Amino acid sequence: MTKTPPYYAVIFTSKHSNVTDGYNEMTQQMETLAKQQKGFLGITSARDHIGITVSYWERLDDITNWKQQSDHFIAQKKGKSTWYDWYDVKICKVERAYNFNAPETTV
Amino acid sequence: MTKTPPYYAVIFTSKHSNVTDGYNEMTQQMETLAKQQKGFLGITSARDHIGITVSYWERLDDITNWKQQSDHFIAQKKGKSTWYDWYDVKICKVERAYNFNAPETTV
Repeated sequence: MTKTPPYYAVIFTSKHSNVTDGYNEMTQQMETLAKQQKGFLGITSARDHIGITVSYWERLDDITNWKQQSDHFIAQKKGKSTWYDWYDVKICKVERAYNFNAPETTV
Repeated sequence: MTKTPPYYAVIFTSKHSNVTDGYNEMTQQMETLAKQQKGFLGITSARDHIGITVSYWERLDDITNWKQQSDHFIAQKKGKSTWYDWYDVKICKVERAYNFNAPETTV
């Protein structure tokens, strides 16, 4: 994700319940669906005791559209309260971005 | 983290190198140090194949101050290129936030 700011990010932080049935299939399908959306820029996830998923979007409107579609998708698949003890969503404007890459080592 | 927006977030996404010596001690000390900083609001982390750490701050200036202090701290401890193949930093303004808590189940 090397786009120059400004763009937008959704930070989704969550704690899983004990019910994981169908969860992995749902997230894979959600990710596939997200990538087809207008304004989608990228997505990264990590999970240990909690999960953090950050998706990146060109405009705020793209996030609103995606929220409507993803809420509908999850509702169709299974109640969201089945999979999560809690979750937290933050909608952000990315104002600055920089990165670091270690120099390649030759063997 | 239930503060009403606007406030600021730093999304730190990273890929570890094979060198982990001293890393856990450093992150614990960094977290302790962050919590003592002016404007610090909270921090969450998750790691599997990549790591995502999000820290939250009251103002952009707080992030600038923390960056200067944390760069110095890491430089004192060990070259950052030792621990990371790459990392990516995004400075964001949190514009909206909402959360969900599953209803408590009584047994």
